Amino acid sequence: MIYLDNAATTRMCEESLAVLDDANRNRWFNASALYKEASDETGRIREAREALSAALRAGGGELYFLSGGTEADNTALLCTRKPKGSRVIVGEGEHDAVINPAKVLKEQGYDVVFAPIRPDGGVDEEKFAEMLTPNVSLVSVMHVSNETGAVNDIAKLVKMTKKVSPKAAFHSDGVQAFGKVKVDLRALGVDLYTVSGHKIGAPKGIGALYVAKGAPVRPLVYGGGQEKGFRSGTENGPAIEAFAAAAERAVRLLQENSSKKHDYIEHLANGLAEAVPDTVFITDRERSAPHILTVAFSGVRGEVLLHALDARGIMVGVGSACSSHRESRFKSLLGLDEAHRDGIVRFSVSETNDIAEVPVVVQAIKEETEKLRKFARK
Amino acid sequence: MIYLDNAATTRMCEESLAVLDDANRNRWFNASALYKEASDETGRIREAREALSAALRAGGGELYFLSGGTEADNTALLCTRKPKGSRVIVGEGEHDAVINPAKVLKEQGYDVVFAPIRPDGGVDEEKFAEMLTPNVSLVSVMHVSNETGAVNDIAKLVKMTKKVSPKAAFHSDGVQAFGKVKVDLRALGVDLYTVSGHKIGAPKGIGALYVAKGAPVRPLVYGGGQEKGFRSGTENGPAIEAFAAAAERAVRLLQENSSKKHDYIEHLANGLAEAVPDTVFITDRERSAPHILTVAFSGVRGEVLLHALDARGIMVGVGSACSSHRESRFKSLLGLDEAHRDGIVRFSVSETNDIAEVPVVVQAIKEETEKLRKFARK
Repeated sequence: MIYLDNAATTRMCEESLAVLDDANRNRWFNASALYKEASDETGRIREAREALSAALRAGGGELYFLSGGTEADNTALLCTRKPKGSRVIVGEGEHDAVINPAKVLKEQGYDVVFAPIRPDGGVDEEKFAEMLTPNVSLVSVMHVSNETGAVNDIAKLVKMTKKVSPKAAFHSDGVQAFGKVKVDLRALGVDLYTVSGHKIGAPKGIGALYVAKGAPVRPLVYGGGQEKGFRSGTENGPAIEAFAAAAERAVRLLQENSSKKHDYIEHLANGLAEAVPDTVFITDRERSAPHILTVAFSGVRGEVLLHALDARGIMVGVGSACSSHRESRFKSLLGLDEAHRDGIVRFSVSETNDIAEVPVVVQAIKEETEKLRKFARK
Repeated sequence: MIYLDNAATTRMCEESLAVLDDANRNRWFNASALYKEASDETGRIREAREALSAALRAGGGELYFLSGGTEADNTALLCTRKPKGSRVIVGEGEHDAVINPAKVLKEQGYDVVFAPIRPDGGVDEEKFAEMLTPNVSLVSVMHVSNETGAVNDIAKLVKMTKKVSPKAAFHSDGVQAFGKVKVDLRALGVDLYTVSGHKIGAPKGIGALYVAKGAPVRPLVYGGGQEKGFRSGTENGPAIEAFAAAAERAVRLLQENSSKKHDYIEHLANGLAEAVPDTVFITDRERSAPHILTVAFSGVRGEVLLHALDARGIMVGVGSACSSHRESRFKSLLGLDEAHRDGIVRFSVSETNDIAEVPVVVQAIKEETEKLRKFARK
C-alpha cells in the first residue's frame, strides 16, 4: 500500500494510539465529576491544552476543544458576533466547512463575498484588498489550501484587514497548516484559528478552536458548561490527551519531517514532469506546504485515474475527500483549460511515506495515463 | 475502587476497546475518499448504523452520528423548524444540554415553558397536559432522568402531545435510557431521540440523533455533507464502530444486566434504609431505570460526603456530573425539606459493579454520615 492521501486523514502515530488506549482503559472518568480521579483528569486536560497552546504559540488567547475542524469552522463562521447585514469575506477556495456556513450567513442577510484565488489555489491578495470595507465583520481565509497546499500569508492578510476593517474578526482554518508548516498564532495575529486532530496522527473526532482574547464569539453548542462554557458536552479526555501527544510530536519533528516531505514531493514532481507529458502543476512549490502536490493530467479523468491507481495499491485524492460534489466547484476556480480540467489529482504525504515509493508511483501513473489517454482518443 | 457514578460515564467495555484500537490501527481511512479502503469504511459505518438502528428499533427514521448527547440535544432543540413565537415545552428536570438551548430559544422569542416534575424526578403528566396548546412546535422530555433514574412514559406523553399539538415535534433525550431500559423508538412514537456512546461502554465523543421520517430538522453543523448532509465533518469511523459494538452488547445483555443492577440497587437501598436513619429515597424504584438510586441524607452536604467516600475509594455523584452549578437548580425542584436539601447523593451502577460492594458502601456511608452529622451539630 502506498498511501498518498494524508491531507484527507492520517494514520494515527504510535504515541497517540498508546495514549488513547491507556486513557480509555485507565483514565476514563468524567472530568467534571468531583472525586479525585475526575479532577486528575481535569488536570491532564489542562496539561493537554497547555501543550497544544505551546505547539501553536497560542498565548494570546484560549484553545477550546471540540469535535473537529468542521465544528471549529462552523463556530467561527456562525457564532462570531456580526452586525446585521455586515460584510463577510471568505476565500473562494476554502473548505466546505467554511463555504457552507458562509452560504448560511448569506441566507441570513449578510453581505457574503468570496475572495478569488490564484491558479495555485492561494488567495489573490490584490483582489482581497479590494473587498475590504469598514463594514467587514468577519474574514475567513485558510492558512494552507487543502486542495493545493498553497500557503496564504495570513499575517499580511490580517494586517491588511485590520487597517481597513478594524472591527473585523479574522478566522483562519489551519487544519492543513498545523504540523506541516510553522504556526505561530501570536505572530499571525488571527482572532480565530481551527486545528484538527486526525490530520496530524491523532484520533478523529477531536479538534480545537483558538479564540484570541476579546474575540466576540458565542458557543455553537450549549449544555453543562464544559470548556469554560464555550463547548458543552462531556470532555473527551482520552482523545484530548491523544491529540496533545500527536501535536507535541508533530511540532518536535516539524523540521525533520518537513524536509522529508519536501524531498518526496520534489522527487515526485520531477518524476511526473519527465514521465507524463502535458502535465500542469497546480501547486506552486515556491509557496506551498511541503506535503501536497496537486497536478492536472491532460486527457484523463482524475477519478478514473484514482481507481486505476487504487487497483495497484496506490491511494491518491482528487481534491477534498470531504465531498464528492466539491471537486467540480474547485476545479472551475483554477482557470485550467478543457484538456486538464477533469484530470486533477492530489498527492499528499506524511513522514510515514518512503521516498522509495516515488518511482513506483511515477511508473504507475505513466502507464495508466497512457492507457487512459489511448482510450479517451477512441 | 468502587465506582458508583456510571450515569456520569462508564468504563469502556472490552469489545468496544478492541474495535476502537483495531479500527484506529487498520481502518483509519477517510470514509469519504474514493479508493476501496475508504468505501470499505463507508460500508462498516453503514453496518454500524444498521446495528444501532436495530438496537433502538429505529426503523421509522434515520440515525445520524455526531459528537455526543449534548450535540444531539442542541440539534433537536435549536434546529427543529419552529414558527416564530411558538410554544416549546421542556421538562424542568432535563439535562443542561436541553435546558440551556431552551434558554437560547427563550431569548429568541419562543414561548418556552418548563413542565414541572414530581418529587421522584419524573415529569408530572397532569401539569404537562395543561401546557399543551395547538401552538406547540417542540416538546423535549427525557426518557430517563439522569438525576434520579425516573422513567417518563414517553409513548403516553407523545400521544397526549400529538392530540392537542399536532404540529409539535417530540424530542426525548435517551442518554440514560439506552442500554438501561428497553428502547423501541417506533413504539415510543418520538420524532427525535438522543443517544450517547460513553454512557454504555463506548468511547466519549460519539453519539447519535434519531430523526423520524419527515421531522423538520436542519443541520447544526455544515460542511462536506457527510451523514447524508445532516452532520458534516470527517466520519469518526473508529468511534462509530466502537459505539455499535457497545450498543449491540448492551442490548444483547440488557435483561441479564438489568436484573444485576436491579439487585444491586435494591440491596443498597435496603442497606441504607437500615443503617442510615432519616434518609429520603428520591428515586421511586417502582418507576425508575435499574441503574440509579438517588437519596437525600439529612444533616450532611452531598459534596462533603462525596469527598469523604472518595477518600475511601468509593466514587459517587451529586446529581449531574456535567455541571457543578447544576445541583442547586435541580435540588430546589424536588420539594425536599431544609434538612435534606443539601444531602443529595446519586449512586449509579453498571454491570461491572459487584453486589459484594454493597455492605462496604453502606458501612462507609453509615460511618461518614454519623461523623458529619456530629460535626454539623456542634
